[in-house]
Amino acid sequence: MATLGDIGVSAFINILTAFAFLLAFAFLRIQPINDRVYFPKWYIAGERTSPRRSRNFVAKFVNLNVKTYFTFLNWMPQAMRMSEAEIINHAGLDSAVFLRIYTLGLKIFVPITLLALLILIPVNVSSGTLFFLRKELVVSDIDKLSISNVRPASIRFFFHIGLQYLFTIWTCYMLYKEYDYITSMRLSFLASQRRRVEQFTVAVMNVPHVPGHSLSDTVDHFFQTNHPNHYLCHQAVYNANKYAKLVKKRERLQNWLDYNQLKYERHPEKRPTKKTGFLGICGERVDSMEYYKQQIKQLDKTLTLERQKIVKDPRSVLPVAFVSFNSRWGAAVCAQTQQSKNPTLWLTNWAPEPRDVYWKNLAIPFVSLSIRKLVISLSVFALVFFYMIPIAFVQSLANLEGLERVAPFLRPVIELKFIKSFLQGFLPGLALKIFLYILPTVLMIMSKIEGHIAWSTLERKAASKYYLFMLVNVFLGSIVTGTAFEQLHSFLHQSPTQIPRTIGVSIPMKATFFITYIMIDGWAGIAGEILRLKPLVIFHLKNLFLVKTERDREKAMDPGSVDFPETLPSLQLYFLLGLVYAVVTPILLPFILIFFALAYLVYRHQIINVYNQRYESVAAFWPHVHSRIIASLLISQLLLLGLLSTKKAANSTPLLVILPILTLSFHKYCKNRFEPAFRKYPLEEAMAKDILEQTTEPDLNIKAYLADAYLHPIFRSFEEEEELVEVRVDKHQSHRVSPSTSEVSSPSPSHYVHHPTSPPHYVAHPSSPPHYIYQPSSPPRYVYQSSPPNHVYHYEVEP
Amino acid sequence: MATLGDIGVSAFINILTAFAFLLAFAFLRIQPINDRVYFPKWYIAGERTSPRRSRNFVAKFVNLNVKTYFTFLNWMPQAMRMSEAEIINHAGLDSAVFLRIYTLGLKIFVPITLLALLILIPVNVSSGTLFFLRKELVVSDIDKLSISNVRPASIRFFFHIGLQYLFTIWTCYMLYKEYDYITSMRLSFLASQRRRVEQFTVAVMNVPHVPGHSLSDTVDHFFQTNHPNHYLCHQAVYNANKYAKLVKKRERLQNWLDYNQLKYERHPEKRPTKKTGFLGICGERVDSMEYYKQQIKQLDKTLTLERQKIVKDPRSVLPVAFVSFNSRWGAAVCAQTQQSKNPTLWLTNWAPEPRDVYWKNLAIPFVSLSIRKLVISLSVFALVFFYMIPIAFVQSLANLEGLERVAPFLRPVIELKFIKSFLQGFLPGLALKIFLYILPTVLMIMSKIEGHIAWSTLERKAASKYYLFMLVNVFLGSIVTGTAFEQLHSFLHQSPTQIPRTIGVSIPMKATFFITYIMIDGWAGIAGEILRLKPLVIFHLKNLFLVKTERDREKAMDPGSVDFPETLPSLQLYFLLGLVYAVVTPILLPFILIFFALAYLVYRHQIINVYNQRYESVAAFWPHVHSRIIASLLISQLLLLGLLSTKKAANSTPLLVILPILTLSFHKYCKNRFEPAFRKYPLEEAMAKDILEQTTEPDLNIKAYLADAYLHPIFRSFEEEEELVEVRVDKHQSHRVSPSTSEVSSPSPSHYVHHPTSPPHYVAHPSSPPHYIYQPSSPPRYVYQSSPPNHVYHYEVEP
Repeated sequence: MATLGDIGVSAFINILTAFAFLLAFAFLRIQPINDRVYFPKWYIAGERTSPRRSRNFVAKFVNLNVKTYFTFLNWMPQAMRMSEAEIINHAGLDSAVFLRIYTLGLKIFVPITLLALLILIPVNVSSGTLFFLRKELVVSDIDKLSISNVRPASIRFFFHIGLQYLFTIWTCYMLYKEYDYITSMRLSFLASQRRRVEQFTVAVMNVPHVPGHSLSDTVDHFFQTNHPNHYLCHQAVYNANKYAKLVKKRERLQNWLDYNQLKYERHPEKRPTKKTGFLGICGERVDSMEYYKQQIKQLDKTLTLERQKIVKDPRSVLPVAFVSFNSRWGAAVCAQTQQSKNPTLWLTNWAPEPRDVYWKNLAIPFVSLSIRKLVISLSVFALVFFYMIPIAFVQSLANLEGLERVAPFLRPVIELKFIKSFLQGFLPGLALKIFLYILPTVLMIMSKIEGHIAWSTLERKAASKYYLFMLVNVFLGSIVTGTAFEQLHSFLHQSPTQIPRTIGVSIPMKATFFITYIMIDGWAGIAGEILRLKPLVIFHLKNLFLVKTERDREKAMDPGSVDFPETLPSLQLYFLLGLVYAVVTPILLPFILIFFALAYLVYRHQIINVYNQRYESVAAFWPHVHSRIIASLLISQLLLLGLLSTKKAANSTPLLVILPILTLSFHKYCKNRFEPAFRKYPLEEAMAKDILEQTTEPDLNIKAYLADAYLHPIFRSFEEEEELVEVRVDKHQSHRVSPSTSEVSSPSPSHYVHHPTSPPHYVAHPSSPPHYIYQPSSPPRYVYQSSPPNHVYHYEVEP
Repeated sequence: MATLGDIGVSAFINILTAFAFLLAFAFLRIQPINDRVYFPKWYIAGERTSPRRSRNFVAKFVNLNVKTYFTFLNWMPQAMRMSEAEIINHAGLDSAVFLRIYTLGLKIFVPITLLALLILIPVNVSSGTLFFLRKELVVSDIDKLSISNVRPASIRFFFHIGLQYLFTIWTCYMLYKEYDYITSMRLSFLASQRRRVEQFTVAVMNVPHVPGHSLSDTVDHFFQTNHPNHYLCHQAVYNANKYAKLVKKRERLQNWLDYNQLKYERHPEKRPTKKTGFLGICGERVDSMEYYKQQIKQLDKTLTLERQKIVKDPRSVLPVAFVSFNSRWGAAVCAQTQQSKNPTLWLTNWAPEPRDVYWKNLAIPFVSLSIRKLVISLSVFALVFFYMIPIAFVQSLANLEGLERVAPFLRPVIELKFIKSFLQGFLPGLALKIFLYILPTVLMIMSKIEGHIAWSTLERKAASKYYLFMLVNVFLGSIVTGTAFEQLHSFLHQSPTQIPRTIGVSIPMKATFFITYIMIDGWAGIAGEILRLKPLVIFHLKNLFLVKTERDREKAMDPGSVDFPETLPSLQLYFLLGLVYAVVTPILLPFILIFFALAYLVYRHQIINVYNQRYESVAAFWPHVHSRIIASLLISQLLLLGLLSTKKAANSTPLLVILPILTLSFHKYCKNRFEPAFRKYPLEEAMAKDILEQTTEPDLNIKAYLADAYLHPIFRSFEEEEELVEVRVDKHQSHRVSPSTSEVSSPSPSHYVHHPTSPPHYVAHPSSPPHYIYQPSSPPRYVYQSSPPNHVYHYEVEP
């Protein structure tokens, strides 16, 4: 048990570390050489170009202006200067809402902290049970400020219960206001957005294979039949995973070639060589540049073959399509309804943004998805509860004897006493450290295996897995000693009412641990985030070895983005800690407040100057954040209930049983009230935007706009290739009427039957001029001009 | 513990009772006087008219044909004669699918019974542990056939585990086949259905109030804007609950009047009189006929006032509307999508059939719905777990001392020893009996309070509540002694792994109890169902006292319908018993088989000859049946796990842990694969039917067809009234263009803006002849002829 003095020392060390990071950051950020590491967002936005001042050669790399060194904290007011609306414009809604989580934390916890400190600390201190117990128990000073200090069966517990009610109501009120505000932010963001392809597009999964028809024809026919007024065109999806892998490999080889060429340029006296064997250690020694050139040449041949295969082979067309509609209304209808009698076929859902699509997963067969989900949920369960088992196994292998057996030549070194003791203290922890470091990656891979098709979904899923891990292993694992597996075992053999009691009792005792945790992870960790040590080192390494042109330097820049899978769960852990300890050990709250304030500043700075979001999910993660804060509330209520029941405050506990029910009802209400805005697109909204657009841009060529928005990014490289131009020209010269160019709005044969009295009449046929047909109370229709033949194309493959 | 002999006696008694019921039924059903009690369905279908044979006066009432008495069981083959397709035609899909549950029971349990009896009985008997224990424990013969007889830690348990796997797989296989079949039945039933109003109609809840606009205008404007091509018209809903109550009261008074008039006709020498006070016990004595006539006259005045109030007062228009579309596609789209930015406004859902609508609940304000749901779920929880508390309280009041205190004049009677002992034995049970009798009604009232707007939903919700009650109080309550509340308390203080163990151990011991239960409730109870004692008595009473005309007799007939809220849960209890005891005490299975076979025959007969379904939900209850059978499977697996873990078969139990996971995955798969067919209407299906209809009936007046389909049934009586005709004529003479007659397909002012180049053009204006506009690839549009002014009307109220 730490005394207040211990906490003070720890606080001092951590504050010092944090300041060291901040100082280092302040120093490094004003060096022009690091400009691209600390301000990449502005380069991407095009508002900044290489080294700011270039008066002399040294000033290109080092900041010689002494004055700027004294204002080393001036990034803080700078970070605060931008308004929320500007941030939304600058970095997107996701980032703005992410920052709101921190302000929400401040809004919730500032009043709670004040109340708790003003009311509970005096109540607890004056109670003074522990004062008399001091001799028997090792009691810290912190404990005297906590609920442990209150005599069992004391009437003072009504203060705690009353405050728990107050805190719950306050938290719920703030959550409600926040959800309401973010919902309206989301809706107005969506409403104010420029025209975007994903508003018109629906991702269709599990398209059935109709024998004798190509997949394209099947899709066209199905949507022309079932959405005749709204269907526009579709983009087939090709299995380019292998091709993408080859392209990646080529890039890697090109990097090596560049590196060697640069090396040769700098030292022309010696041609670089390398060994061809494993890791460059063994094998024949060859000329590096020649070697890589040849490798690239070979790979290019493979690439050409693979490319032709994708274009020619009908089996490379996946049973997935991006179907576009001529209005947002049509897309909204298609995304929200069931299409086929068989509910596992023709599954429609909103298409993610093109840059948000995780193309690799589109190739996963639909049937395997449910099995994948089952397997992954079992694995996550195993990972959370049994992760100590493989680590213990590795630890038992990675001891000194094992090391000596594997590498006998190391024995003389290992036998040195200093090194031996260092290794013995270090090795067992190493496996755990490595595990925790790669955990987010592992969870991300697991989410990928689950088969979600958008980066945003993948990150949200990884975040929820990480949260579960943190909850069980950091929160519960710290409170109840023993591994998670032991806890699971003991919980299974305890009664459900016993569990909150077991945990509740230990909570006050762990306050000092969590205070230290907050200081290390929350204060120093966040200060480390702003330093960007890893991107800094990598940028300079790349700059040294690979960068030849300005464009290379552009590529070497790694702005990164808000790391949702890691930041959201740890953020939510702080909410949990705050809510749990608010009534139990209120002295913990100021530490959390400092975390929220510091992290808010840091992330605000990073979002403005550094991060470049990969996608825009329009705050789709908010419902998760909300429900996890609600879960934290529930946990805090249950644990207080358990704690009080051991304090013989039995007559007061029934009062606390009502709280979880009320909290759950509140959650359900919020879910009904707000969540649909995050999952569905209301028709009213879609129609309003359609009408507006039709009024402002009556002759918009929506089809040309959508033409190849959902083309696999790897295919963009095709366009420069001759063969594809040929394929394209071929198509249009053969006068094959491809469904995507002219048949779309012409009736299919089956339609003639239903309008027997009138002749067919093409609205958007290439040969007819654009014209308007007035339709009473019809939805907006885009009377699109025909696009030139070489402009609209699809990679269609004939069976 | 009962011996085999005891079971035999019990079986004998119950078989006797069942036979007595069947004999009585066979005797009563061939009496012409009972014809309307036992064959009402045929009267309703119009294929049968009053007394079959009317050769002489006696034969009108009593069957004199001696031969028919000998073939008293011939209703059984008669019941089997109809094919499933015929039953669907005759009684609807609900009834046909209801019967399939019984055949599913047979299909699942016949092979299970055979296997279990052939394999497990020898395994259990030959094990013979209990044989040696006989002196210490009271062991029944049944127990020797059960798993209790197997030595702890015996290798024979692998037989039980293997069979549990086999039974689970078999049950899942049959469930899958059944779900698949019923889904296709449902879809083909929906596809083959004639045109039905509910296919075109969507129920819209929580229509917002726009100041300065009537509700009708708001609805019209909203749907004309957001579903411009598809919206046809809407039916506002009026709060006629008070009026309906008054009408009901008038009917009751009319019945009394009829009764007294009939009495007077039969005994003209004495005019019937009655006292006006409480229950006719006290108060002034008046002439009954005059009294009731005057009461009815007064009530008629109130009715007229109330009617005028409904028609004139805008506040009687509820924020609910039935919105109709010109195609099934349009309705399907509207029902499945979110309409408004605020997800609690403009809630759309499929409209139930008009006869299925529970009008009273449409008046419930939307905001109160979630509170109602919360309150009712808490009440159901309380009812299930604490129902013994009020009963015990009533029992403690209703003892003899209490009775003597309330009614001292009864003391001499009560003090008689015979009556005293009878009352003491009888009174405590009475409260419980009354409670159990009124339980389904109470649960139905609870479901009504929850606010569902369709009878079918109400019945399903009541059924699920009843199932919960049966599961906790009949199944668990019989196995674990003590009240449900005591169980709940002990379960809360036990570890989760201990619960299946506690229950599992008691299971084999309770087999005899459940065998008796099956015989009483399943055999004799079902045989009693066919006798229809209550409707028989009520019919003859009504016949005696109220019936004056043939139409009155028609009204006195009460065919009833399949009582889903009671039959489904008890049916599911038999599945649960069968699955739980299949491995534990297989000797129970034949009893269940007999139940399924007998109940199948009885319900088949009743469905063909008696029941007249109130609504057709197209097997909407099936997913519930399916998931409850799955739940039974899970319960059986967990209990076997608990049982085996006490049998020291620890090495084999891990094998059983996999089963629940597999079962749950199977359930999830089925849910994804089949359930959408029961909840949503695929667009493909809607479009196919639309196109077909448009081809076969190109100039169908869909609007006239839908005109007043969703009028409150109470308003049908209005049409005979003068005032309403006046209101209607008024509307059409004043040339006010009501949105529902001509504006529907004309563009609203806001639409002119978007088609500035073309003049407005009315497709369905009353003054223009019907004509076709060809639209390439458009959804089917009904070019409806204008209906005559006095044909299409809405009760529109101006603010």
